[in-house]
Amino acid sequence: MKDLKALIRGVPDFPKKGILFYDITTLLKDPEGLKQAAREMLEPFKGERIDKIAAIESRGFILGGIIACELGVGFVPFRKPGKLPAQTIREEYTLEYGTDCLEMHRDAVSPGERILVVDDLLATGGTAAAACRLVEKLGGVVVGCTFIVELTFLPGRQALPGRRLHALMEFDHE
Amino acid sequence: MKDLKALIRGVPDFPKKGILFYDITTLLKDPEGLKQAAREMLEPFKGERIDKIAAIESRGFILGGIIACELGVGFVPFRKPGKLPAQTIREEYTLEYGTDCLEMHRDAVSPGERILVVDDLLATGGTAAAACRLVEKLGGVVVGCTFIVELTFLPGRQALPGRRLHALMEFDHE
Repeated sequence: MKDLKALIRGVPDFPKKGILFYDITTLLKDPEGLKQAAREMLEPFKGERIDKIAAIESRGFILGGIIACELGVGFVPFRKPGKLPAQTIREEYTLEYGTDCLEMHRDAVSPGERILVVDDLLATGGTAAAACRLVEKLGGVVVGCTFIVELTFLPGRQALPGRRLHALMEFDHE
Repeated sequence: MKDLKALIRGVPDFPKKGILFYDITTLLKDPEGLKQAAREMLEPFKGERIDKIAAIESRGFILGGIIACELGVGFVPFRKPGKLPAQTIREEYTLEYGTDCLEMHRDAVSPGERILVVDDLLATGGTAAAACRLVEKLGGVVVGCTFIVELTFLPGRQALPGRRLHALMEFDHE
């Protein structure tokens, strides 16, 4: 068993001065770390019915694909506006300044399907909350959301009240 | 065994009028299709030494992660400019109008490492060619490039002379 937290690299002043960025690429390039992360992200949801993995563009795609294969279920993407070619639904969410948007194909989720939402990072929770709303708009059931990293100095959990959230590690400071 | 080509959806007039877009999301959401695609993308490179999977943002990440886990190797991303937090190298490539850019972390590949490049689509080949150059700039060896879809009405193979290229299916018209 690897210490996954030790595989994360802190990069100072990215994307801007004063921000410490938690870089997961150093974990992803470690063969054991990659497999173990996928296994542990799934751990609390094991034994439950999960019909699909829905992952958030773009770092969420890496672990999302692996987890879908591991479970033997299909993979569906949440994407930024204009990237998905067929009929979509859309949810806005608030950023520090202004708003952003997430889209999902209308046929990505069928009513009653149980969906596990995957992303790399739980920060303010806005993106994950929008992702959950998209699943529910299509009649799906959100089993929970699973992340590699949770930034506990940001109010991510408050943005996702009543959701089952799982993260492999926490960072409590920028 | 699934007919993977039958799982691809043609979406007319996306991203613009007159273009038929080959949508892989209908393959990704099929549990067997997803697994089989990963297996078949790796097929011609089996039995060779591959040290890492390098996948192109963002649809390449989905199969890239799965193939890395399947092989038991690490995963490294190629990303659009400004997304990777640590020290990067960069390669430009030509688009229909203007140029675009791909980046890779300097520590993503070590000299002598053998890299399989993964993306969803071989179209003009510009992005994949830039990806190969990035690997070689860092002293890596490109084992080959593997794709889900090849658009044979575009000159993708000409952009990648001498490279080992593999695609699961071809489409010969827009």
